[in-house]
Amino acid sequence: AEVKKIAVISGDGIGPEVIAEAQKVLTKTEEVFGYKFETEHGLFGGIAIDEKGTPLPQETLDICKKADAVLLGAVGGPKWDNNPKETRPETGLLGIRKALGLFSNIRPAVIFDCLKDASTLKPEVLDGTDLIVVRELTGGIYFGEKFRRETANGQEAVDTCVYNVNEVERIARQGFEIARTRRKKLTSVDKANVLETSRLWRETVIRVAADYPDVELDHVLVDNCAMQLLRRPSSFDVIVTENMFGDILSDEAAMLTGSIGMLSSASLGEGSFGLYEPVHGSAPDIAGQGIANPIATILSVALMFRLTFGYHDAAAAIERAVKEVLDAGHRTGDIAVDKSKAIGTTAMGDLIVAAI
Amino acid sequence: AEVKKIAVISGDGIGPEVIAEAQKVLTKTEEVFGYKFETEHGLFGGIAIDEKGTPLPQETLDICKKADAVLLGAVGGPKWDNNPKETRPETGLLGIRKALGLFSNIRPAVIFDCLKDASTLKPEVLDGTDLIVVRELTGGIYFGEKFRRETANGQEAVDTCVYNVNEVERIARQGFEIARTRRKKLTSVDKANVLETSRLWRETVIRVAADYPDVELDHVLVDNCAMQLLRRPSSFDVIVTENMFGDILSDEAAMLTGSIGMLSSASLGEGSFGLYEPVHGSAPDIAGQGIANPIATILSVALMFRLTFGYHDAAAAIERAVKEVLDAGHRTGDIAVDKSKAIGTTAMGDLIVAAI
Ligand SMILES: CC(C)[C@H](C(=O)O)[C@@H](O)C(=O)O
Ligand SMILES: CC(C)[C@H](C(=O)O)[C@@H](O)C(=O)O
Repeated sequence: AEVKKIAVISGDGIGPEVIAEAQKVLTKTEEVFGYKFETEHGLFGGIAIDEKGTPLPQETLDICKKADAVLLGAVGGPKWDNNPKETRPETGLLGIRKALGLFSNIRPAVIFDCLKDASTLKPEVLDGTDLIVVRELTGGIYFGEKFRRETANGQEAVDTCVYNVNEVERIARQGFEIARTRRKKLTSVDKANVLETSRLWRETVIRVAADYPDVELDHVLVDNCAMQLLRRPSSFDVIVTENMFGDILSDEAAMLTGSIGMLSSASLGEGSFGLYEPVHGSAPDIAGQGIANPIATILSVALMFRLTFGYHDAAAAIERAVKEVLDAGHRTGDIAVDKSKAIGTTAMGDLIVAAI
Repeated sequence: AEVKKIAVISGDGIGPEVIAEAQKVLTKTEEVFGYKFETEHGLFGGIAIDEKGTPLPQETLDICKKADAVLLGAVGGPKWDNNPKETRPETGLLGIRKALGLFSNIRPAVIFDCLKDASTLKPEVLDGTDLIVVRELTGGIYFGEKFRRETANGQEAVDTCVYNVNEVERIARQGFEIARTRRKKLTSVDKANVLETSRLWRETVIRVAADYPDVELDHVLVDNCAMQLLRRPSSFDVIVTENMFGDILSDEAAMLTGSIGMLSSASLGEGSFGLYEPVHGSAPDIAGQGIANPIATILSVALMFRLTFGYHDAAAAIERAVKEVLDAGHRTGDIAVDKSKAIGTTAMGDLIVAAI
């Protein structure tokens, strides 16, 4: 098989621990399916600030650009939280998205049956919940001009939210394409009753919809969406929205599943290139203890196989292995009901590798 | 007693029906407590568009300005949804907030014990939930410059989010003051890792905090807050945040109580003037049927008594009456488990009036 290059970025906190397990999964799928991966590690986030003085060293960016896909652990931690903007991990995150053209963030929020109880929602409300938030990732208020200015009324801060019709169109298409492979329902979320960018967003989504007559489209205001996610999560299929709203709604959606330690995400650009990472953060409080849950990162590998490499057989094998291990009752501390029986990061990784 | 002037705005949909019950409550409190109210009605929202060609006629604004407080039903409906901006009900809403200087929106999210089951959250998670969202209401991206422009890459839309240090300071003080009367915990929500307005927000809140050493302050990022509201709603006391985040989070918080037909809100400016309205909308689908739940509007009267008039005795009497009627098992359709036993809007209003 063709050798696939994967840039591996461990990052901070529990990042290196969960990435180590994901790498074992890569090796095992090479053995079982005959695929070939070449991995190259890059420094990113807090550790890159410490060692190179910047969260996103050029060298790391080069490694990513040469690769077919990027596997990311997690970045950030209290150590760097009060740094000036240029030397904060988040700045690296925004920088890598922009530099790699990753305009689309895909976040599946699914319920793991054996973890249903971990949700704060009633099980009957969660039944059948299986949604994806498609978030625009390189535009909007995140990347618009920002500044301070002195006025007669004192200091003022300004952020600018900008959307170009092409930016909206490409993410809308992404939403429709994904909906097409699923239950064919797309919910576009905006604040068209207040924002000009939202009005452009809505017009554009409606225009693009003409090319997807098989997909049912509806428009929901962001405040209402925050409510409906709670009230009837299972009624959503694919949600497409702009950067800031997507940040909020995708986290709400993830949390309502109760399975946040299990959720993976993909950030995609044009073509098949993508960056894959767990939804959870770097969890500095439990870093280095060998107790982090590696499943979200392992499932991010499966997502990479599906979306970037088209290795559906290996993806299915990983997903099946995870399910098997969970069904057999194995749990890391974050998802264990009986914490005394929890197993560690490596043990969980080993069990999944063995089940592939 | 001094005569208090109340501007009454019924608005659209179920607005007139729920306002009629609130007016009966006003009359009853005059009788029982000897207070004196003078009400004057104004057209606003869709009905004002139909009758006067604008959602916020000058005459209505004048009535509000002369009044000590405003009682609002609800505005909007599908009939006006596709109107151009100037003749949409929302434009009236934004206009009245700005014109009356209502910079602070107060939304208590409380659990009514008898309605706990109506929430999609597990009852044990809801236990003890009693929070208030204090939302900045006349600044931020809602009121910043908005426009379209043609670029080499096609059309572009722009919204501007602006916050002045004074705007942040006054809403921060509002948050601290309210927290001081409660459990003394203030959570300031921002996106300081991305937005300049949020950095100004956070700095300012920290500065103001020096005047409130008795209030415990923490800062939570908006995406994390959307998650934590779901995970541990009872850990929040007062949340203070900017306009757009407040729109989303206050709706999320309202929905998680399961009691959205019961929640009231206040929009305040400098001094004691305020506009009071139910959190729910105009519900055009059930308008005119006499089945709407008037409780949120009646509780908005109680909130007006507390916050604008300082009539704590009458406020307590109304709140107690509502509790009594609910405890006796009376329910409107929206909150009834057995819908066949549901009572109508007028019957519910009459029962509450009788219990005062
Ligand atoms: C860390 C932060 C800049 C980032 C974002 O807001 O995009 C994070 O919340 C995320 O969702 O990936
Ligand atoms: C109707 C709309 C403009 C309004 C807002 O976003 O402020 C509403 O959602 C609210 O929360 O009062």
